[in-house]
Amino acid sequence: MLESGASLGPVEVAYETYGALNASGTNAVYVCHALTGDAHAAGHHGDPSRPGWWDTMIGPGKPVDTDRFFVVCSNLLGGCQGTTGPGSVNPDTAVPYGLSFPLFTVRDLVSVHRALVAHLGIRRLAGALGGSLGGMQVLQWAIDHPDEIAAAVVVCASSRLSAQNIAFSAVAREAIMRDPDFQGGDYYGTGRAPDNGLSIARMMAHITYLSEESMREKFGRRLQHGDAPRFDFDVDFQVESYLRHQGEAFLKRFDANTYLYLTRVMDYFDAFADSAAAGAGSENTSARFLVVSFDSDWRFDTAHSREIVRQLQSRRAPVTFREIESPWGHDSFLLDIPEYHRTVAAFLNRTATDVGV
Amino acid sequence: MLESGASLGPVEVAYETYGALNASGTNAVYVCHALTGDAHAAGHHGDPSRPGWWDTMIGPGKPVDTDRFFVVCSNLLGGCQGTTGPGSVNPDTAVPYGLSFPLFTVRDLVSVHRALVAHLGIRRLAGALGGSLGGMQVLQWAIDHPDEIAAAVVVCASSRLSAQNIAFSAVAREAIMRDPDFQGGDYYGTGRAPDNGLSIARMMAHITYLSEESMREKFGRRLQHGDAPRFDFDVDFQVESYLRHQGEAFLKRFDANTYLYLTRVMDYFDAFADSAAAGAGSENTSARFLVVSFDSDWRFDTAHSREIVRQLQSRRAPVTFREIESPWGHDSFLLDIPEYHRTVAAFLNRTATDVGV
Repeated sequence: MLESGASLGPVEVAYETYGALNASGTNAVYVCHALTGDAHAAGHHGDPSRPGWWDTMIGPGKPVDTDRFFVVCSNLLGGCQGTTGPGSVNPDTAVPYGLSFPLFTVRDLVSVHRALVAHLGIRRLAGALGGSLGGMQVLQWAIDHPDEIAAAVVVCASSRLSAQNIAFSAVAREAIMRDPDFQGGDYYGTGRAPDNGLSIARMMAHITYLSEESMREKFGRRLQHGDAPRFDFDVDFQVESYLRHQGEAFLKRFDANTYLYLTRVMDYFDAFADSAAAGAGSENTSARFLVVSFDSDWRFDTAHSREIVRQLQSRRAPVTFREIESPWGHDSFLLDIPEYHRTVAAFLNRTATDVGV
Repeated sequence: MLESGASLGPVEVAYETYGALNASGTNAVYVCHALTGDAHAAGHHGDPSRPGWWDTMIGPGKPVDTDRFFVVCSNLLGGCQGTTGPGSVNPDTAVPYGLSFPLFTVRDLVSVHRALVAHLGIRRLAGALGGSLGGMQVLQWAIDHPDEIAAAVVVCASSRLSAQNIAFSAVAREAIMRDPDFQGGDYYGTGRAPDNGLSIARMMAHITYLSEESMREKFGRRLQHGDAPRFDFDVDFQVESYLRHQGEAFLKRFDANTYLYLTRVMDYFDAFADSAAAGAGSENTSARFLVVSFDSDWRFDTAHSREIVRQLQSRRAPVTFREIESPWGHDSFLLDIPEYHRTVAAFLNRTATDVGV
């Protein structure tokens, strides 16, 4: 049963775990992925060229130390990397859902995580971590069920998107849905998919993931071929080549409908809108929050994190806030930035020790 | 003859004028339009609902006072509002140029303006003004021919685009060129045009023309229909409706190939790259510069204007610089912002008086 009242089932969930669960079921850390992530958060399955998307954060001796913690990461509901989503076959019709897949919310994403937690025999989470949409899940979870998480780490997230945030996602969706190969979302098995639209969406998103400063450093106005500009409409500047590559590579691993659903989930997210949010910080609360932003992030800038902190504080929830210096924009949450990693490690370990893990 | 060595001709130029040229041919002000502008800068041709795009700036008693100045505005080379562009018929082939139209530069745009100036019997410009790509033309013109312009007003422009600036334009062009209706640029007369791609480009551009603050004020998270979200992929937030409207309305007045050419002109622009730029500020220079930026503009932020000022100063050109407070982002240059208008009027009038106009 989804928050909207629609029902959906059965739901399959793809997940990975790292480290071992202790006997009391109290040393688990749940990792929530962002818009285009998947369950493969750490390790490399024997292929060192394919490390998990948060492999710098998770592993033996790393900030989320798998010698101490049992780490779980699952592909999100609506995803396209193993968990039931719009590309899955609807058992009622025997064809893929497409846009008949019901719209869901961040709370629904969390419901699926909670079912997996129960299934794995986890009694209480020592921590939950996520960046961007991942942080939004952690926030919702810890607000709704503060007794289930000891340390909630919310990185470069937002409690509700701004008009500009929504605008970028809206244009991305337009690019996908106006692609003639979109076919109303029923493109599976037709041999055609909205690859152009999805590439455009991805290229545009990449601009918002990097800071202007990091783009200047990475690409500047350098040309792709030699020193002289070609004066044509093909790729000439290195930044064009980078974007085109990102747009193409994305097609191999991502489904356009999932992009629609997960961006829309973010648009509608409004963590502190309803009364359930009042629970966070009441007497029986035990979740402690670490809210992290990066000073060059303009996708969800520090003002978004400050608003989360303000709302949590007004509910008397224990919050630590850090704005980390980094030139790398929104993408910083994926990178090995020493102050960031030290902050997360210290918060997670201290909280775990305090709760006896 | 274009800067690239290619030749093109004949070139037709659509232009409008306001006010009257004095007998000595010295009271003219040339207005250069931006990416999607046209020759209709002021007045309203009897239809008050269609004022020129800079009608707040130009007119009797306005900052560019048509009681004092003879104002000229022409549609740019490569344009689609009357001046020869990729949609014009190539006399050699009797079909529209499409992408066989040669690539050109900001210097070529200026060459066409200069031909019109000569044609109109203007001896020397009391001023040249432009915002964004318009400012880039003014800058190039005044650098190359400082004796031809008394007052050069360069508003929210750039002397060379950043990687992020290029990236946004690159994605816009991808959206157009990947549209199946683009047909390699030869869509004229086929009954199909890359409307979806051009709309996507326009919607994305609009995000960069507004500041986050102004989007928050204009739209926030307000819904289009009532209070309850619809939870679907159609337009639900007001900002989505605004963007879609902008994307649609643009199709009525703009040609996709022109969008390609004029964005590419901006990518390649590098005002101070060549030795000709050394001319600005030499002994025989007489152009005075006013460089204006807006504090909330993130398309071409104040750093771009400061770089122009730095380069001009290093060439000993007389420069006045003003960063104007405005919440409206890049679009500010089109708006009636009192401090901005006062600054432009004072600079233009003082310079005109100094040179005896």
